[in-house]
Amino acid sequence: MTDALKVGIAGLGTVGASLVRIIHSRANELAITCGRPIEITAVTARDKSRDRGIDLSRAAWFDTAEALAAEADIDVFVELMGGAEGSAARSVEAALQRGLHVVTANKALLAASGVKLARIAEEKSVLLNFEAAVAGGIPVIKALRESLTGNTVSRVYGIMNGTCNYILTRMEKEGLSFADCLAEAQRLGYAEADPSFDIEGNDTAHKLSILTTLAFGTEIAPDEIYLEGISNITIEDIHAAADLGYRIKLLGVAQRTETGIEQRVHPTMVPRDSVIAQVDGVTNAVAVESDILGELLMVGPGAGGDATASAVLGDIADIAKSSPGAQRVPVLGTPAASLAPYRRAQMRSHEGGYFIRLTVADRTGVFASIAACMAANNISLESIVQRAKPDGSDTAKTIILVTHATMEDSVRKAVDAIKAESYLAGEPQVIRIERPKAF
Amino acid sequence: MTDALKVGIAGLGTVGASLVRIIHSRANELAITCGRPIEITAVTARDKSRDRGIDLSRAAWFDTAEALAAEADIDVFVELMGGAEGSAARSVEAALQRGLHVVTANKALLAASGVKLARIAEEKSVLLNFEAAVAGGIPVIKALRESLTGNTVSRVYGIMNGTCNYILTRMEKEGLSFADCLAEAQRLGYAEADPSFDIEGNDTAHKLSILTTLAFGTEIAPDEIYLEGISNITIEDIHAAADLGYRIKLLGVAQRTETGIEQRVHPTMVPRDSVIAQVDGVTNAVAVESDILGELLMVGPGAGGDATASAVLGDIADIAKSSPGAQRVPVLGTPAASLAPYRRAQMRSHEGGYFIRLTVADRTGVFASIAACMAANNISLESIVQRAKPDGSDTAKTIILVTHATMEDSVRKAVDAIKAESYLAGEPQVIRIERPKAF
Repeated sequence: MTDALKVGIAGLGTVGASLVRIIHSRANELAITCGRPIEITAVTARDKSRDRGIDLSRAAWFDTAEALAAEADIDVFVELMGGAEGSAARSVEAALQRGLHVVTANKALLAASGVKLARIAEEKSVLLNFEAAVAGGIPVIKALRESLTGNTVSRVYGIMNGTCNYILTRMEKEGLSFADCLAEAQRLGYAEADPSFDIEGNDTAHKLSILTTLAFGTEIAPDEIYLEGISNITIEDIHAAADLGYRIKLLGVAQRTETGIEQRVHPTMVPRDSVIAQVDGVTNAVAVESDILGELLMVGPGAGGDATASAVLGDIADIAKSSPGAQRVPVLGTPAASLAPYRRAQMRSHEGGYFIRLTVADRTGVFASIAACMAANNISLESIVQRAKPDGSDTAKTIILVTHATMEDSVRKAVDAIKAESYLAGEPQVIRIERPKAF
Repeated sequence: MTDALKVGIAGLGTVGASLVRIIHSRANELAITCGRPIEITAVTARDKSRDRGIDLSRAAWFDTAEALAAEADIDVFVELMGGAEGSAARSVEAALQRGLHVVTANKALLAASGVKLARIAEEKSVLLNFEAAVAGGIPVIKALRESLTGNTVSRVYGIMNGTCNYILTRMEKEGLSFADCLAEAQRLGYAEADPSFDIEGNDTAHKLSILTTLAFGTEIAPDEIYLEGISNITIEDIHAAADLGYRIKLLGVAQRTETGIEQRVHPTMVPRDSVIAQVDGVTNAVAVESDILGELLMVGPGAGGDATASAVLGDIADIAKSSPGAQRVPVLGTPAASLAPYRRAQMRSHEGGYFIRLTVADRTGVFASIAACMAANNISLESIVQRAKPDGSDTAKTIILVTHATMEDSVRKAVDAIKAESYLAGEPQVIRIERPKAF
């Protein structure tokens, strides 16, 4: 048996503590599978004295992640602190520069500095693994970076935020409002006290930017993402979607178009009988459409201490199973030096189906005016539903339009034209429709 | 850039020809991603003169796979011929003995000789990759062998035969008989002229035996599988399942139990709102339940020249990205020398829910007798549906029972007791129910 793989862990929160527990409790199995023991020889965390219920007696304690990365007797530096800057960023870079392998679950760091870090890792011939950074336990990084080698990806999309999916699922199943479901999610620990990072789509955007790079071989562009959260989705939208055969999910979508790469995060209507439409609650799902393989969908836990630790452990095991300097897996699928510049497709040129919900005064001529605005922008309609307002008032009614594939620009112009008329009784709701290719 | 990876391909059918086309058309991208060019330097197939629409001018032609494996100037031997014995088996073994990496899509060979071949590969420090052997383009081998390292798997199950899933989907959606759907599948090329290997479950069993070994670290036991095909599933079963909130799929299931490993292939009722229930047509799906990661489900194309070639190419790329002798990924997840003997759990001790459909004479006392047979075997019932026969005859009626979790042995005894009575007007139908853990 070869020498043990020496691991240093920075960050002993839920994921870090779970990882330590698993590596200790499965030491024998891991040594057999990996061909060498995995030993935790160094750790650091904010509070040395806190009892985490784990045995750290055989690990050297470091006061900072930077010190651990610089001085510890380790082969692999595992970063589980989080944050795009500060100690996490400095220690990861220092570890790579020192020629250590790095495993991280830090999506913010990768979104901000992934290309720079990949370049260093590749120069030093070490691995930088980050399976846990996107969709938790789902091995989507491995699928994109290894299994799909040689494929040209056309679209990658997914449900990557458990908080949002939990809220949307509860709204649909229980008929509750967004605010009620958010409060419940907070009570259950599925949502933060300040939930805006999740519900406004920023968390999904970070993850999407990483998948985009793996899928399309372009530089990471986390700030070039069209972003729309779920806070203005009403129970009325969800019911209308259901009536038309759709469910509403917060999707992150990256797509190759003729004018560049489209990256967008927004509430999305998906066909009710598609596989991804059944992904409920905090579960995540990621789909990849490519030209040789076809469509691949992976569903699993997107968060949680154990699921995330499992992904981190898989990354560590991959390092344990390879010899030093022997790995040439490009960190971001494409070698950092060969990544193409990111070219953003404008959202106005996005093409797809649209759901448009209008609350209008119940007056003669309104419907004709709406139809005229659509026709003037060359929008053809798949379905039109008109119904009384749920509150029973007869002065306003709801009109729902579902378009065939059309340009975002046309929809915006049509909606602006309708808004310029005097009959709208509320802000129009526009939700994009996304159709899986195969299932 | 390092030396090219030299590949020899044995078998130029649909998959082999697709693989050659892809490697040629994406030569530049592959060289960048893998850090070295991939070159096809040797090929063999049954018929040298056949025009396959691919350029083989730079590859040496060998008349037999054995000769190619023994003499060709290659680093990787790719076996795409199929068959558990004969030329495929001899050439794969010879290639490994020669110290070549091997990539194969041959599930029959792996089911029959996987442990022996893994032992040779591990002794020679070469890779034996076989992603395409199970569920085509779905990277389930990689997930089990790499991503789930350290996890204890409790159950692995899936839809692994496109022919059966196509037939069951068509029966449900179109209300057609099994025979009609089979004929249609044959017409479309989804089923062989002799379809028994697919529809009786043997193909699924081969794949399941490989997954079982990867999941549980036991020796491959393809002959220790409880097998039941789909040919006796009627449209009546499918409608009854739908009424009760289920869909019928042919699943392969391997499960850890107290008395050993259960391996079974049979028509299965899955809850209609589960994710796997939505997997229709020729699409495959594999789910893995493990203690750290939780549940992971992967959905994708299970067959087809391109999808299979994509999986083979991913396997070749993994070899290209690693240095010779540097890889220690155990072929079957656990090193061959450490695999445990397979201990079969008896099907009679299987525990689960059951759907039982009885066609009975319309006589007083029949229902009481059935209820008594169930009670005598301690079977508690979740639901009971009684209906007139669809043919409108009033001398026979259908009784459908759905049990709570119970032992197979009890169900068999109860059904035998019912058969001993005189009121049955047809063979009882028994279908097992399987419930996904998380979604």
